[in-house]
Amino acid sequence: MGWTRIARSTIKQSLAADSLAGGATGGHMSQVGLLRNGFHANRNQYFFLLRNITTSGGLKHLPSSVVMDGFRTESRGISFTPRYQYHSAEQIENKSDYEVEEEKLPGLEPTKPGEKPRVVVLGTGWAGCRFLKGLDTKLYDVVCISPRNHMVFTPLLASTCVGTLEFRSVAEPVSRIQSALAGAPNSYFFLANCTEINTDKHEIYCETVSSAGLPYDPYCFKVPYDKLVIAAGAEPLTFNIKGVEEHAMFLREVYHAQEIRKKLLLNLMLSENPGISEEEKKRLLHCVVIGGGPTGVEFSGELSDFIMRDVRQRYSHVKDYIQVTLIEANEILSSFDVGLRQYATNHLTKSGVRLVRGVVKEVQSKNIILSDGTSVPYGLLVWSTGVGPSQFVKALNLPKAPGGRIGVDEWLRVPSAEDVFALGDCAGFLEQTGKQVLPALAQVAEREGKYLAELFSMIGKQNGGKAHCAKEVSLGDPFVYRHLGSMASVGRYKALVDLRQSKDAKGLSMAGFVSWLVWRSAYLTRVVSWRNRFYVAVNWATTLVFGRDNSRIG
Amino acid sequence: MGWTRIARSTIKQSLAADSLAGGATGGHMSQVGLLRNGFHANRNQYFFLLRNITTSGGLKHLPSSVVMDGFRTESRGISFTPRYQYHSAEQIENKSDYEVEEEKLPGLEPTKPGEKPRVVVLGTGWAGCRFLKGLDTKLYDVVCISPRNHMVFTPLLASTCVGTLEFRSVAEPVSRIQSALAGAPNSYFFLANCTEINTDKHEIYCETVSSAGLPYDPYCFKVPYDKLVIAAGAEPLTFNIKGVEEHAMFLREVYHAQEIRKKLLLNLMLSENPGISEEEKKRLLHCVVIGGGPTGVEFSGELSDFIMRDVRQRYSHVKDYIQVTLIEANEILSSFDVGLRQYATNHLTKSGVRLVRGVVKEVQSKNIILSDGTSVPYGLLVWSTGVGPSQFVKALNLPKAPGGRIGVDEWLRVPSAEDVFALGDCAGFLEQTGKQVLPALAQVAEREGKYLAELFSMIGKQNGGKAHCAKEVSLGDPFVYRHLGSMASVGRYKALVDLRQSKDAKGLSMAGFVSWLVWRSAYLTRVVSWRNRFYVAVNWATTLVFGRDNSRIG
Repeated sequence: MGWTRIARSTIKQSLAADSLAGGATGGHMSQVGLLRNGFHANRNQYFFLLRNITTSGGLKHLPSSVVMDGFRTESRGISFTPRYQYHSAEQIENKSDYEVEEEKLPGLEPTKPGEKPRVVVLGTGWAGCRFLKGLDTKLYDVVCISPRNHMVFTPLLASTCVGTLEFRSVAEPVSRIQSALAGAPNSYFFLANCTEINTDKHEIYCETVSSAGLPYDPYCFKVPYDKLVIAAGAEPLTFNIKGVEEHAMFLREVYHAQEIRKKLLLNLMLSENPGISEEEKKRLLHCVVIGGGPTGVEFSGELSDFIMRDVRQRYSHVKDYIQVTLIEANEILSSFDVGLRQYATNHLTKSGVRLVRGVVKEVQSKNIILSDGTSVPYGLLVWSTGVGPSQFVKALNLPKAPGGRIGVDEWLRVPSAEDVFALGDCAGFLEQTGKQVLPALAQVAEREGKYLAELFSMIGKQNGGKAHCAKEVSLGDPFVYRHLGSMASVGRYKALVDLRQSKDAKGLSMAGFVSWLVWRSAYLTRVVSWRNRFYVAVNWATTLVFGRDNSRIG
Repeated sequence: MGWTRIARSTIKQSLAADSLAGGATGGHMSQVGLLRNGFHANRNQYFFLLRNITTSGGLKHLPSSVVMDGFRTESRGISFTPRYQYHSAEQIENKSDYEVEEEKLPGLEPTKPGEKPRVVVLGTGWAGCRFLKGLDTKLYDVVCISPRNHMVFTPLLASTCVGTLEFRSVAEPVSRIQSALAGAPNSYFFLANCTEINTDKHEIYCETVSSAGLPYDPYCFKVPYDKLVIAAGAEPLTFNIKGVEEHAMFLREVYHAQEIRKKLLLNLMLSENPGISEEEKKRLLHCVVIGGGPTGVEFSGELSDFIMRDVRQRYSHVKDYIQVTLIEANEILSSFDVGLRQYATNHLTKSGVRLVRGVVKEVQSKNIILSDGTSVPYGLLVWSTGVGPSQFVKALNLPKAPGGRIGVDEWLRVPSAEDVFALGDCAGFLEQTGKQVLPALAQVAEREGKYLAELFSMIGKQNGGKAHCAKEVSLGDPFVYRHLGSMASVGRYKALVDLRQSKDAKGLSMAGFVSWLVWRSAYLTRVVSWRNRFYVAVNWATTLVFGRDNSRIG
């Protein structure tokens, strides 16, 4: 079943519901109609609308006859409106101006017989990039579409906020990961967001991240695929807590780290200004981290390192006011061995990080309100409470795994949509596979990417690369995940390494300086290019010798 | 003569002129009044207003009696307005609510007997930072005020735009340049703009660059000084050409380089999108540099290097569309030896840079209009036609040198304002010194900073550091500038070195690879800290081995 059709029928339902809800649908309907006519100018809002409609999903309990009745009434109600402004229901249902619009979009041609099959990859995270790296470009042409042209080496992102590492050391351009994207005749990287997938037509629709004076704004185009790999990632979970989106900072992209760094340095400098009260200084220099997972713990550790070593030296007027607080509802590092948890707790406390058990109820511009009513003044707030399905994934009309990710089978295929695969944080095993949804870890995504690249080689060698050609192909072994262990740095040359395969299994776990060496060397070998390995090593060495950089650029 | 008083009398004149011009001054006057009352909330606009008024200076030809008449009429006209909203002329003249407001501002205390004298430095460019570096902090406490907390190593800025150097390698934190700013009890760095100087009271007024939730927005404070060093720099000259401010990019700060880089990479990626016409691709990838001075030439050279080496490899789909054009009204590198100019012209042309003689008439969003009517479509426009006095300098009521810079004597003192010094791009020799205003070069600023630091040591040792104490002090030799020569890189391991002392003198000049080595090593020894020297060397080596980085961050 294609997405276009689904979207259309959901509009229909929505309109029906609006009309049932009091008949005041004129505005809504005209909005849809207008948006369709102003297609290029408003595609974004249009899809946003579609998504909202699709994801609301609150209409399924309505009997279909009522829906259709409501819809027809409404369609009659607007049938006198000039054609250029509104579409009648019949047009939406049958004539498909929308498809005409789609056909008019610029885009790549479908692959012709004799050409290599085209793999379209959405996303440049761990999963997408590992897949890109492993893909055999002798068998496939590849088109990668993502709003960023680099992979972020997320486990080291926390270190960039305080200047231990440079921002660029943790970003790897995709064209270095898969050189075909830079030069091969039919392979491309497009800096764009995918807005819609038509699984029937084997096409996706995209919108560039900025139009920069292109003829249409936003600039939309389509890309037909032979195989589609969705690795679009997840979004930070905010649990709909009021004020989080406005006031908290996340730590998932390089620009997030840049913002955190700028804010931290700004607060340090503002607090030195004459006339700032003691209370205000304390607030400005109170760094609060919400969420005691590895990211939260590593960021707290880096911050306390920064304070211990650099703030005392370079902001000595305000050194006694700075404080790091880590707020977690349960236990920190809950996936780690109990001994390691205890070690981390002791170490963080000793480094001056205040650990607080609490649940955030609301975030205001200067205060965090906890569920017990406590008000915590803050200057910098970093939110890292895990991730959940993105708006894009929620809006896709594909079967979902428990938790709302795109549901896949053991070979990472989306069963109901031919030639579509999903992996990484946006995908999870369907319930019928009997397997658990894997955690949103770089390790999982990376392993899936590697597996899928090998699967694609197998498919390609059996001539199953083109659209609709993989039905008879033998797929080999399904994907099996073996957890290799977890690592987290806690600051000051100390880290945790937990090599147990699952939470309840037995196995090696260690903490301290040796673990920290393991952590650093493991990361050094994982950073994709030699260039970045070299830079990370140089950054670490420089920080050791000269301390951290504190220029506030921009 | 104090600045406050001057500002006030200029308001008076301005009001008078308004009333003469038709009596419709109510709006204007109330604006001034209101702004005064809403002092904290509107200080910025208020000073902006003051500056505009002061700099307009179009009233000097009016006979003073007419002015006073006009003013009195006006002041009578508003004398019924409630006091909290308007100030009558007498109040402005005598009661000085404004001074009351100033006294209420938070700020540092004036230095007490027994304490070290306080030097306040405005700006963190070449002049300010070199002065800070050389200042003897055993003799002085130092307060540095600037909207950026680092020095930019400007000659290498062009290299950061294309990824040859990292941004941080060319930025040096002030606390590394002068460690007293980080830790000494009475020395501070404030991230703020100076908005006003009161030379009578020996005080300056500042506004933080961002308030980030501080009690007042903007947050204003005052700093009393014993000695004031103005090294606030200059602003790019746009010659009031329409559209330059909106559409062109400058290259003077690290964030400028970041913006240029982002735009360049965005255009490269956008031009790969399907459906972009040939013409549009050419426009997006047309990089135009206006101004053939060293910055313009170096940037063009770096760009052509980037295209030769990196774009061909990594954006091979669009490599035939990219073009660099350098537009200059006269000759490029006009201060260099004629042989070197010819060398640069040949080299740039060979590297694919198109050199165009032309004068820009207008800049539109996608086209540059030249004075002969030619329309030049562009995707990226970098403007580097030299610098002129900033708004801040223009508004200061201090005697000016020819060209509008702050006028100084041979010891870099501002003659009419006791204990005030000016240097770098914002200062120039007064006409009566018989000396020429020095060019706006890093070399000049750096030499002046060094000289002034030595002068301050001499003054300090004679106990002349405190306010009003330097009248009897012997100052030693005046500042004499000896030009050491000019250097410019033209890309591809080639540079120009002109060691003549002036434009018409004889002396060594050379071009080519050896010059390029001289250029690199000269820069390496000039970058202030060992950390950055090390980083620049590492960056250069990495670029040589791995090519340039092309992640588009943020």
